[in-house]
Amino acid sequence: MGDLIKLLRAGLPAEAVLTDPDVIRVYAKDMASFCDAGTAAAVVLPRTVEHVQHVMRTATALRVPVVPQGARTGLSGAANATDGCVLLSLVKMDRIIEINPVDRIAVVEPGVVNAVLSRAVAAQGLYYPPDPSSWEQCTIGGNIGTASGGLCCVKYGVTAEYVLGLDVVLADGRLLTTGRRTAKGVAGYDLTRLFVGSEGSLGVVVRAVLALKPAPPEQLALAAEFPSVAAACEAVCEIMARGHAPSLLELMDRTSVQAVNALGNMGLPESTAALLLAAFDTPDPAADLAAVAELCTAAGATEVVPADSAAESDLLLQARRMTLPALEALRSATMIDDVCVPRSALAAMLDGTAAIAAKHGLLIGVCAHAGDGNTHPVVCFDPADADESRRARESFDEIMALGLELGGTITGEHGVGVLKKDWLARELGPVALELQRSLKQVFDPLGLLNPGKLF
Amino acid sequence: MGDLIKLLRAGLPAEAVLTDPDVIRVYAKDMASFCDAGTAAAVVLPRTVEHVQHVMRTATALRVPVVPQGARTGLSGAANATDGCVLLSLVKMDRIIEINPVDRIAVVEPGVVNAVLSRAVAAQGLYYPPDPSSWEQCTIGGNIGTASGGLCCVKYGVTAEYVLGLDVVLADGRLLTTGRRTAKGVAGYDLTRLFVGSEGSLGVVVRAVLALKPAPPEQLALAAEFPSVAAACEAVCEIMARGHAPSLLELMDRTSVQAVNALGNMGLPESTAALLLAAFDTPDPAADLAAVAELCTAAGATEVVPADSAAESDLLLQARRMTLPALEALRSATMIDDVCVPRSALAAMLDGTAAIAAKHGLLIGVCAHAGDGNTHPVVCFDPADADESRRARESFDEIMALGLELGGTITGEHGVGVLKKDWLARELGPVALELQRSLKQVFDPLGLLNPGKLF
Repeated sequence: MGDLIKLLRAGLPAEAVLTDPDVIRVYAKDMASFCDAGTAAAVVLPRTVEHVQHVMRTATALRVPVVPQGARTGLSGAANATDGCVLLSLVKMDRIIEINPVDRIAVVEPGVVNAVLSRAVAAQGLYYPPDPSSWEQCTIGGNIGTASGGLCCVKYGVTAEYVLGLDVVLADGRLLTTGRRTAKGVAGYDLTRLFVGSEGSLGVVVRAVLALKPAPPEQLALAAEFPSVAAACEAVCEIMARGHAPSLLELMDRTSVQAVNALGNMGLPESTAALLLAAFDTPDPAADLAAVAELCTAAGATEVVPADSAAESDLLLQARRMTLPALEALRSATMIDDVCVPRSALAAMLDGTAAIAAKHGLLIGVCAHAGDGNTHPVVCFDPADADESRRARESFDEIMALGLELGGTITGEHGVGVLKKDWLARELGPVALELQRSLKQVFDPLGLLNPGKLF
Repeated sequence: MGDLIKLLRAGLPAEAVLTDPDVIRVYAKDMASFCDAGTAAAVVLPRTVEHVQHVMRTATALRVPVVPQGARTGLSGAANATDGCVLLSLVKMDRIIEINPVDRIAVVEPGVVNAVLSRAVAAQGLYYPPDPSSWEQCTIGGNIGTASGGLCCVKYGVTAEYVLGLDVVLADGRLLTTGRRTAKGVAGYDLTRLFVGSEGSLGVVVRAVLALKPAPPEQLALAAEFPSVAAACEAVCEIMARGHAPSLLELMDRTSVQAVNALGNMGLPESTAALLLAAFDTPDPAADLAAVAELCTAAGATEVVPADSAAESDLLLQARRMTLPALEALRSATMIDDVCVPRSALAAMLDGTAAIAAKHGLLIGVCAHAGDGNTHPVVCFDPADADESRRARESFDEIMALGLELGGTITGEHGVGVLKKDWLARELGPVALELQRSLKQVFDPLGLLNPGKLF
């Protein structure tokens, strides 16, 4: 341990190596429940690529594990400490190096906060779509590590689709450049995409070339109330099957609606079994919303309320964005699941989730990126109640099992981390799992990068 | 050899194993120039996944190389035979298994022809964007192998962006399933994307889940004449920097225009130094075209001619699609390059290409997916003239060197194959190359899958 700190300090500024146990404890965990964390040896806050290379060379020389971290807003424990590790926090590498409107790219360091980048590109008439709920805190490096999604995905896809190229420090300290600055490119295997979503287990991203879109028109939203979750899901399927391209298509169940009203006094209609929010950022959003309103009514909506203005639309989206904190406020702890199913199986997924909640006598609020089939059942429980905690964990697992049964995946956008690593093996099957392990071995033969995560 | 054929036949229908030397010769090459091909031991035409597994198990047992093939329309020699190999042609596995408008996916076998799929999904109001020039012949499996692009990419991206999941027969005959049927999913490393563009070197794709888009409105095009290539490139940069989203943005130089007129009597304006074609499939394409016309005029266009109708637009696109055959008709042989540069470097790339042509005294016609910065310089030469052939090859290489110098890639959409494998090492650099080789080793430890390609 003494050696590690001494060697780290030999190549880093004094303020970049933190060893105060209280500080180390603060950096030990991300926002996931039910995920243990070990005790790190140090927190390192590099400011340059060379700093990161020094950390990895030191770690390789001493066989010390390294856990790369962004803002620790993740929901799967992927950034949690392991015993004796170096917590490598990239938050100080936060420069936006370039924004290029002609090439429609941005070049950034990993510690740039998502919202900071989004605003900087917006100021130049551009758009960086990925918008995880934590966008005001989370970093681009963390987004790349977990291939984060958000509300935008139904139209714009996840983070993976915006990463063109990367600079990555490998486990042994070598610097790898992948990908390109060009709009297209097919030279060799796609290493870039392999790093996206790899949760820091293959290398440390130190620079990213990101694709940008032109800024779309301001979006306009509507809210539709449904007498059942199934009816709302039918509307979702119709909207997508008819070829609409909403910029957002979100579902909140009654529990979520009530929680949001309780927390934020948002005045959402509590009598509804499911509230559907749809938005368009098209040239004529009102026309698109009118068409969608008709489909909602045909599917059984009891009320459809279009927003008159962008400001009113924003209020609706604020309500949606408040769901997770609102559900968290209901009870002392929550576990948020992230099952994604084919859109056509969304109703079965949500009805099944309600049945699981009833069976375990638990409060499970559901919000969903409905257009993607990506559901976030939030299991509310009291960690002081051992039996309720056990039921919470069981229901969480049953929700994933149901997702797989319906042809879905255990994680649409949050990642695997510690939380779902047993489940990853189940989803992948033995052949894919063996190959994934072999890939890990290629990049990190000593197993130093974020060990104990994913597999 | 006798053993190989006997063992292959033991698990395959008689008509699936072809050994006639004339037939073998027909299957030996794709459409690339300057790429040698060896003599295969057999052509195998599987109809089922089990057939493919039998071929790979046999090949592994006997240590025989296997070259997977689609329609052999590729332009890099990636499907060319190596001596003693099995040419594994997937063209008979040509079923469209499912088209699902709610989930917006298609599930297909690899031998489905691109145009067949495109028409089948269009009949259901859906859209499969990737449209390589060879779309009437090329197969989805081949498109996946080379990560093909096309005219659509400036708005819709390349094949890679439409592949959600794959079934792949591995070198040892095991069946791997990657990816998903869902809109999102981040469970484990992205193996799907690793296979896309891997040119059959990691496994044999036997089934693909493809993402579909809603069918857009019919596109409307314009043609703009420019007094210089640089002026046309300035217009391209302005169009993209102003946030326009053309469904097509193509450039043809004077040589290309003249060649097309000579072949097809298309009546394109021959006095122009560069012809720019732009199209929009937006709700109001005429308005978008008007805005683009203004930008073209500001950049120096001498004439801007908008098409009045979808039919007239189609004519323009037909002219563009005719460029390659038209340039081929000018001289007995051509080599088509595929350098992609950042859009902002397009003018430098095209001016540099013209200088290379002048230096070598060669005819090099250029068409470009200008919106992507993806240029296709077509070097015309007479293979019977040894000196001209040498100059053609030299100019081809100088064009790639220039592309790399300008921050580009040696291949935007055609792939590496045999043609550019020396250049791949140069683009990737030693660290990335070593990792790519190690990945190959994980999937194909005996080196049986398409040996001698890529690396």
